[in-house]
Amino acid sequence: MSTPLRIGLAGLGTVGAGVARIVAAHGADLAAKAGRPLEITAVSARDRTRNRGIDISGFAWADDPVSLAAREDVDCVVEVIGGSDGPARALAEAALGAGRHLVTANKALIAHHGQALAETAEANGAALRLEAAVAGGIPCLKVLTEGLTANRVTRVLGVLNGTCNYILTEMARTGADYGRVLAEAQAKGYAEADPTFDVGGIDAAHKLAILASMAFGTRIDFEGVVTEGIERISLTDIQHAADMGFTIKLLGLARMHEQGLEQRVRPCMVPADTAIGALPGVTNTVIAEGDFVGQVSLFGAGAGEGPTASAIVADIVDIARGARGPAFGRPASSLMPAHRLAFGDEHAAYYLRFMLQDRPGALAALTEVLGRHGISIHRMRQYGQGENAVPVVIVTHDSQRAEIDAALPEIAALDVCHSAPVAIRIEDVSG
Amino acid sequence: MSTPLRIGLAGLGTVGAGVARIVAAHGADLAAKAGRPLEITAVSARDRTRNRGIDISGFAWADDPVSLAAREDVDCVVEVIGGSDGPARALAEAALGAGRHLVTANKALIAHHGQALAETAEANGAALRLEAAVAGGIPCLKVLTEGLTANRVTRVLGVLNGTCNYILTEMARTGADYGRVLAEAQAKGYAEADPTFDVGGIDAAHKLAILASMAFGTRIDFEGVVTEGIERISLTDIQHAADMGFTIKLLGLARMHEQGLEQRVRPCMVPADTAIGALPGVTNTVIAEGDFVGQVSLFGAGAGEGPTASAIVADIVDIARGARGPAFGRPASSLMPAHRLAFGDEHAAYYLRFMLQDRPGALAALTEVLGRHGISIHRMRQYGQGENAVPVVIVTHDSQRAEIDAALPEIAALDVCHSAPVAIRIEDVSG
Repeated sequence: MSTPLRIGLAGLGTVGAGVARIVAAHGADLAAKAGRPLEITAVSARDRTRNRGIDISGFAWADDPVSLAAREDVDCVVEVIGGSDGPARALAEAALGAGRHLVTANKALIAHHGQALAETAEANGAALRLEAAVAGGIPCLKVLTEGLTANRVTRVLGVLNGTCNYILTEMARTGADYGRVLAEAQAKGYAEADPTFDVGGIDAAHKLAILASMAFGTRIDFEGVVTEGIERISLTDIQHAADMGFTIKLLGLARMHEQGLEQRVRPCMVPADTAIGALPGVTNTVIAEGDFVGQVSLFGAGAGEGPTASAIVADIVDIARGARGPAFGRPASSLMPAHRLAFGDEHAAYYLRFMLQDRPGALAALTEVLGRHGISIHRMRQYGQGENAVPVVIVTHDSQRAEIDAALPEIAALDVCHSAPVAIRIEDVSG
Repeated sequence: MSTPLRIGLAGLGTVGAGVARIVAAHGADLAAKAGRPLEITAVSARDRTRNRGIDISGFAWADDPVSLAAREDVDCVVEVIGGSDGPARALAEAALGAGRHLVTANKALIAHHGQALAETAEANGAALRLEAAVAGGIPCLKVLTEGLTANRVTRVLGVLNGTCNYILTEMARTGADYGRVLAEAQAKGYAEADPTFDVGGIDAAHKLAILASMAFGTRIDFEGVVTEGIERISLTDIQHAADMGFTIKLLGLARMHEQGLEQRVRPCMVPADTAIGALPGVTNTVIAEGDFVGQVSLFGAGAGEGPTASAIVADIVDIARGARGPAFGRPASSLMPAHRLAFGDEHAAYYLRFMLQDRPGALAALTEVLGRHGISIHRMRQYGQGENAVPVVIVTHDSQRAEIDAALPEIAALDVCHSAPVAIRIEDVSG
């Protein structure tokens, strides 16, 4: 057996402890698979004495995580500190700059600084690996950059945030509203005390920007991701969606058009009887489409100690086996700046909901506006009778986003229209 | 750009032509990804003049495929001839013996001779890669041996034969019987003129034996796969299954028990509302379960020119990038002989169907036998009234296979029982 791969582990939270647990539990097997032992030599965390259920007495301790990058007994740094800047970034730059391999689960770091880090890695002959940063235990980056590498990818989409999927699933299942389900999710540990990054779609946008770069060979463009969270999704729309055969999912989607790269994270409707439409709880999915392979879908746990640590250790084993391929599947210098698709150029079918006054002529006024904007109706349902207003739900044929955006304010201004209209894109997820 | 990886392509059927098409279509992009150009230098097929829609005039021609192994202008042989022996085997042995890398889509070759070929590859410093041999375009072997390598795999299962899935799906959808759907599948090119390998489960068993080896670190044991095809699945049972909320799928499943390795390919019932239960047409799925990652599921096209060629080219790119890892994820010498689980030790819920005489005491006689064998009833339905006999369908609680096998002949021997009872295992596919 050849020399061990010596690991410096920065961060001993849930995921860091999980990495130590896997290396302890499967050390002999991992050595056989990697062709050499994996050995954690040094660790760093905020609190040396906290009980994490793992024995860290055999590892050298570093108060300053950045110091791991310079240690002679570290070949590969594992960064699970988190945060797009601060010590995580300093450590990543120092490690790669010193020719140490880097494995990270840090989507924010990569979404903001991935290009620079990949260039540093290549300049120093080091590997930069980040499987755990996207969709937890699902090896989607490996599948995109290696398994499907023979293809021109045409689209990549997914449910990339388990917290949001849990909340939307629970709202549909229990009939409880957003605020109550969020509070329950926080109580169960499925949502953070400050849930903004998750429910606002930022976390999913970090992941989508990484996926898009690998799928299309473009530089990461996190700022180019059109992002909308789930905070304004109402139980009413979830229930109307179900009635029309749809579920609402926070979808991340990237597609290369002739006119530019489309990247968006947004609540969308998908057919309830598809695998993505039926996706339960905190599960994630990533679906990629290639010109030769067609559609390939992956499902699994998107977060949690075991799944995330599983992805990190897989990256470590790849590095131990000698994998030195570029972080984004192509040399960093060859990644092209992403030309953004203009927002209004999108087209799709839409779910529209209006609260209309229940009197003659109301529907005529509404449909006149739609017709004038070339928005054609595929299905329509009007529900019950109301004191003031009744819900009218319309599923459109394929429509231009710009026309929807123009029509809705006009309809909102009609005196028969109560409250702001709702528009939710219906995504065609078939291959 | 460094030296090209020179490819000798043996076989120019659908898949071989697809490989040439991908290399022609995406050559520049593949070179960027691989860090070096991929160049097909020599080809071999039965008929030099046949029009395949690709230009082969730039490739050297070899009448004898085995001669590709000895060519100075070939670094990597791609074998898409097929067949477990004959020229495919001779070429594989010669190529690896001469230190040429080998990429193959040949599941029969690997199921029978994979161990010997992997040993030859390792002895000669050559890579042996076989992604295309299992589940076509789905990169399931890469996911098992690399993406999930941090885990002790506890179970791997899948729908591994598109022909069978198409036939079962069409029977359920159209209400046509097995013979008619098979004939239609043959007319559409989804089934071979001689469909035995597919409908008899052999093809799926080849693939399962490969998956099991990679999942558990055991030597391939194709003879140890308990195999049953779909030829005897009746429309009646498909319809009763649907009525009970199940679909029938030809499942391949491998699980490591303390008592030994369970490997089987067999029609099973799965809940219709799961992704695997709703799997349409010729789609394949592979589901792996690991001790840290939980359940990871992959879906995609299991056959066809584009998907299969996509998997082959991915293997070629890996080799061009320098991947030399062992074929089955661990050194061939470390793979353990598989200790087979005794057949009767299996336990599961079962679907049982009986044709019972519609008279007092019939059900009592039936249930007395079940009770005596410790088989407990979870749900039961008796359908309509018949001239001679009526169908009685039972879903059992978890039962020992050996008890089912003992009870059924006893029930068949009852004079109230018409025609042979049917027993179909219900698989728990939840993670």
